[in-house]
Amino acid sequence: MVDEPSGTGADRLRATYVLTCAAGDDPETKARDIALEQTVELPEPCVPRDVAARVVGAVERVEPAGDGRWRAVIAYDAAALVDDVPQLLNLLFGNISLKTGILLAAIGWPASLLARLPGPQLGVDGLRELCGAHERRPLLCAAVKPVGLSVERLAERCRQLALGGIDLVKDDHGLTDQPSAPFRERVERCVAAVARANAETGGRSVYLPNVTAGALHERVEVARAAGCGAVLVSPLLVGCDAVRRLATASGLGVLAHPALAGAFFHPDHGIAPEVLLGDIYRAIGSDGVIYPNVGGRFPFGEGTCLAINASLRRPLGRLKPAFPVPGGGIHAADVPRWVERYGNDTIFLIGRSLYDQPDLVAAARGLADAVRRRS
Amino acid sequence: MVDEPSGTGADRLRATYVLTCAAGDDPETKARDIALEQTVELPEPCVPRDVAARVVGAVERVEPAGDGRWRAVIAYDAAALVDDVPQLLNLLFGNISLKTGILLAAIGWPASLLARLPGPQLGVDGLRELCGAHERRPLLCAAVKPVGLSVERLAERCRQLALGGIDLVKDDHGLTDQPSAPFRERVERCVAAVARANAETGGRSVYLPNVTAGALHERVEVARAAGCGAVLVSPLLVGCDAVRRLATASGLGVLAHPALAGAFFHPDHGIAPEVLLGDIYRAIGSDGVIYPNVGGRFPFGEGTCLAINASLRRPLGRLKPAFPVPGGGIHAADVPRWVERYGNDTIFLIGRSLYDQPDLVAAARGLADAVRRRS
Repeated sequence: MVDEPSGTGADRLRATYVLTCAAGDDPETKARDIALEQTVELPEPCVPRDVAARVVGAVERVEPAGDGRWRAVIAYDAAALVDDVPQLLNLLFGNISLKTGILLAAIGWPASLLARLPGPQLGVDGLRELCGAHERRPLLCAAVKPVGLSVERLAERCRQLALGGIDLVKDDHGLTDQPSAPFRERVERCVAAVARANAETGGRSVYLPNVTAGALHERVEVARAAGCGAVLVSPLLVGCDAVRRLATASGLGVLAHPALAGAFFHPDHGIAPEVLLGDIYRAIGSDGVIYPNVGGRFPFGEGTCLAINASLRRPLGRLKPAFPVPGGGIHAADVPRWVERYGNDTIFLIGRSLYDQPDLVAAARGLADAVRRRS
Repeated sequence: MVDEPSGTGADRLRATYVLTCAAGDDPETKARDIALEQTVELPEPCVPRDVAARVVGAVERVEPAGDGRWRAVIAYDAAALVDDVPQLLNLLFGNISLKTGILLAAIGWPASLLARLPGPQLGVDGLRELCGAHERRPLLCAAVKPVGLSVERLAERCRQLALGGIDLVKDDHGLTDQPSAPFRERVERCVAAVARANAETGGRSVYLPNVTAGALHERVEVARAAGCGAVLVSPLLVGCDAVRRLATASGLGVLAHPALAGAFFHPDHGIAPEVLLGDIYRAIGSDGVIYPNVGGRFPFGEGTCLAINASLRRPLGRLKPAFPVPGGGIHAADVPRWVERYGNDTIFLIGRSLYDQPDLVAAARGLADAVRRRS
């Protein structure tokens, strides 16, 4: 994450873009084009003077960023331009997404805007409370999968993972309302299966159904009625504002999945992972954010992972911190090492390295014991 | 757009991916990884055999695509996997968005899935009807801008554009509910201004407010109550399923804006513009889709533009055709040439080249006359 300039104007939303200029392109001109494109969408001579002063983005700084790239800080008048989450995304990257060589690398949030965004409603402490993990240890999450299994078999996997001591037992994010495991029946059976395991172990494992759907609101109601304390959702599949509404209206914990987000993660054009999965997913109300850990089956580097962790946990107005949830191919045996690196306020998402062991309960328990022992 | 394989399995959704392989990577393995990642999210040995047969994507073909790239066709069981629009996007590109070198280049739609998607509710004929343009001529669209102007000044620009003969007078997509021009007041005044102009000219210009917002539903209701026949919306800002609901429930025409979509348009990783803005935006219910024309201020090539046009207008199940809406820097003087190239079932979106003329009415009228004369 690049440094953010310290704010002066109270309502200024400061976007730091890293610019990659084609040969002969002038970075100052490119920055000025962004400031116009994202606000008035007109060339300077066509903008009425009174509007220009209030509304056009102000290019505050353009400086070399190494490797022939440039860092530009553009300040937008948040009060004049942003009235909700979709418009926030539009202002930061809407039209310029269609250009090239522009990476949104950091956001400097004005207090006025942070006051209008919910942030995590449970946050790190609230999620710990939900699964009774008050002691400073990392939490464990595992996905119930694959799609195609019957409700009965999915519920049995839930029970096994909970028996093994996994804190958060979540739906695979591709499980929705398919005929093989219809949503309502799945939720009710999986909640019951985890409750049975909890009764046996004295634990407080939590089942999180995937509510990502056009019918998000109805699914959330089913989940709540079934007694779920938290849900899984993919913000880019349903729209970020739908997650904001979910977080603020449901009272349920929100675990965010990064499906589709990778489209933004090109190194020279897009939105940096720590901004999208960190700042933005946290601001709209995610209590935990899943991302692909370094060394797994997705190509994130360790610097990116650490930057996401920092974005989710750093002080940010009145917003609570959220849990980073590294996953995407973490091997169970490596978890203790990752705890060392990422700290206790982390949820480790383990999937396939449990499923490729013959006994799911034993595999989960081995992992849970290792994590609890070292804390 | 690449060729689509002809379908055999009635419920098979066929995705054609263009793969760019890193040195030493095997395209067959990469294709197989996609088929697993997008369905069961487990390695093959961990997938129960009965599930594998039904649910794992089938790699039907992997063949060279030139320039060291490969074309892979993967068939997914739509009935077993897709239950709504968010899940459709997830299946096509959710997790693999986080990988590299995978471009979704074409979709082969099964009839069963097309039957569950609305497509344009007005379509080309319905939008023509709405603005009384039955004769085979292209339509003209212009944006009312910039953000920062008062309602009064925006309404006056609406009146001028309608007086000049612009068929579709739309909000700039950055106009939402900012203090300078609150939504409800803007809509009511702009509708009235266009009606006054229509009364004067005998024309049927239509004002389209931007309803992109968290409060999409409420904005649509305001627009309808004010007498709007169509609205502007940015699908990726509000979520594609919100557009589906808007199209099916409101009875209003839907003009889709590509804000944020550019994140997907990297040549070797993402979703091809003709698939996202063509197939998908049309399938969810857009009657017209704005895209940045070649030669404007965004870097689309002519081949991409023609492919988008084809995707929006080609026969596709029972889905009506939608209007391509090239914009983003089309010069008014060039419109006749573009009509030649793109055909009459096109809406030309002209913005700044009208605003940089001293008299907005005269500028619009010159353009409208040129288009009507040559048709």
